[in-house]
Amino acid sequence: MTGWVCVVGLGPGDDGLVTDQVRAALAEASDVIGYIPYVARIAPRDGLTLHASDNRVELDRATQALDLALAGHRVVVVSSGDPGVFAMASAVFEACEGRSVLPQIKVLPGITAMLAAAASAGAPLGHDFCAINLSDNLKPFEMIEKRVRLAAEADFAMAFYNPRSASRPDGFGRILSVLRASCAPERLILFARNVTLPDQRIVTVALRDAAEDMADMRTVVIVGNSATRRVGPYVYSPRRAG
Amino acid sequence: MTGWVCVVGLGPGDDGLVTDQVRAALAEASDVIGYIPYVARIAPRDGLTLHASDNRVELDRATQALDLALAGHRVVVVSSGDPGVFAMASAVFEACEGRSVLPQIKVLPGITAMLAAAASAGAPLGHDFCAINLSDNLKPFEMIEKRVRLAAEADFAMAFYNPRSASRPDGFGRILSVLRASCAPERLILFARNVTLPDQRIVTVALRDAAEDMADMRTVVIVGNSATRRVGPYVYSPRRAG
Repeated sequence: MTGWVCVVGLGPGDDGLVTDQVRAALAEASDVIGYIPYVARIAPRDGLTLHASDNRVELDRATQALDLALAGHRVVVVSSGDPGVFAMASAVFEACEGRSVLPQIKVLPGITAMLAAAASAGAPLGHDFCAINLSDNLKPFEMIEKRVRLAAEADFAMAFYNPRSASRPDGFGRILSVLRASCAPERLILFARNVTLPDQRIVTVALRDAAEDMADMRTVVIVGNSATRRVGPYVYSPRRAG
Repeated sequence: MTGWVCVVGLGPGDDGLVTDQVRAALAEASDVIGYIPYVARIAPRDGLTLHASDNRVELDRATQALDLALAGHRVVVVSSGDPGVFAMASAVFEACEGRSVLPQIKVLPGITAMLAAAASAGAPLGHDFCAINLSDNLKPFEMIEKRVRLAAEADFAMAFYNPRSASRPDGFGRILSVLRASCAPERLILFARNVTLPDQRIVTVALRDAAEDMADMRTVVIVGNSATRRVGPYVYSPRRAG
C-alpha cells in the first residue's frame, strides 16, 4: 500500500471554514500529526491514530510524517489557518532535504488568520499588503525591523503573525516604534484575537493609541496603509491608491 | 424584513474549496450579484435572482447590493478567491461612503489564489511575503514598480495578481526588469494558471528564463525570496531566513 503525506489547513478556528478537500483527506487518513490544540480539533475514529506534539518541534513532526508515509501510512499533518503561511508546510519540505526517496506530498490550502481577521473588520487588506511573522525564533529581529520599515515605505498594509509571546514580550514594542517613525499617528491598526472563535475580539485604534499589551500569541495584527479608513463600523483599504 | 449584504469568496475555482459558511449564506440569499463567470458558479433555484454583470463595474455592483439590501433583500456579492484580496469587499465599503443609512454587511473569507497556487507548488510563501495587484487601473504604474523594488530589498516572496491582460500587455515585462535589477538570475518564479481547475498549469523557472508571455489574466505569479529552493518536485521557502 502506498503512503502519502497531506499537509492541511484547518482555518483559524470556526469549523465552518474547514474545506471539503481537507475533510476528505482527514476521512482517508490513517494518522494525524500536529500541535496539540490542532489535533484536538480532529474527531477520533477507528483506524485513525492521533499524534499530538508540543510547540517548537515542527521538524521532528515533519520527519515523523515522512517516515510514516514511507512505511505505507496515510498521514495528514494539521496546521491552523493555511499550512503554507507560517505553518507546517515549509517544515515538511525542509525535512525532505537530503532524502533520496520521498513519499507523495500534497498541501491543501486553508483560510489563513489575516484573511479571516480582515473579513471580520471589513476589508483592510483590500489593496497591496504584506504578511510578516514577528517571531525571531528563526530570523534576526533586525531583519524583521527592516522589513517593517520597507513595507511602510512601500505603503503596504501589513499583517503581523505571532506578534508577541511570553518569551518575546518586547519585540512588538520595537515594531510599534518602527511604525511610529514611518507612519502618521492616525494610521489605523487592528488587533484581532481568537479570530472566528466565540470569544473573537477585534479592536481598531489609531497608531498613536496602540500599546504593546494589545497583542498576544493569539492575536493577528493588521496595520492599514496610508489610505485605510473607517466607514460606519467597518475598516477598509480603498482599491484606488493615494 | 431586514435585508443584508454578505460579500463572499468562492475560492479559486474548485468547489471543494468553497466553505460551509459561504454555502450557508448562499442558501439564505434572495439575490446574488457578481461578475459573470463567478455568478455562473451559483446553482439557480426558486426565490433566488442572479444578477451577473461585466468586469470593471465593481462600484455599480456594490451600489446595487446596498440598495437591494436596504429594500429588504438578502444579497450575496460573489468574488473569486477571497473577497478582501483585490476583489469586491473594498468596492462594497467604498459604495458605503456618504450614505447615512447602511445595511448590515458581512464579509466571509475564501481561499485566495496565491495560497492555492502556493499549496499546489509546495510552500513558496512559507516565509514573509507580500501580495501586489499589478493592474494599473487604479494606481500609477510607478507605484507598482516602487513596491516591487522595495519588496525585493526586503527579501519578501511576492505574489502578483492580474499580472498581464490584453489591455496591459507591457507592464509585466517592466516588472520582470525591476526584478532582474534586484534579484539574482537564479531566483525562482512560479506561473500558476487556472489554479485548482482541471486545466491547472504551474511552471517554475529561474528569473533568467522568465518571459512576459508566461503570464496572462488567469495567472497568479509567485516570486520566491532569496532562499526559496526546490526539493524533489516541490518549491518552498525555508522558515529560517538567510
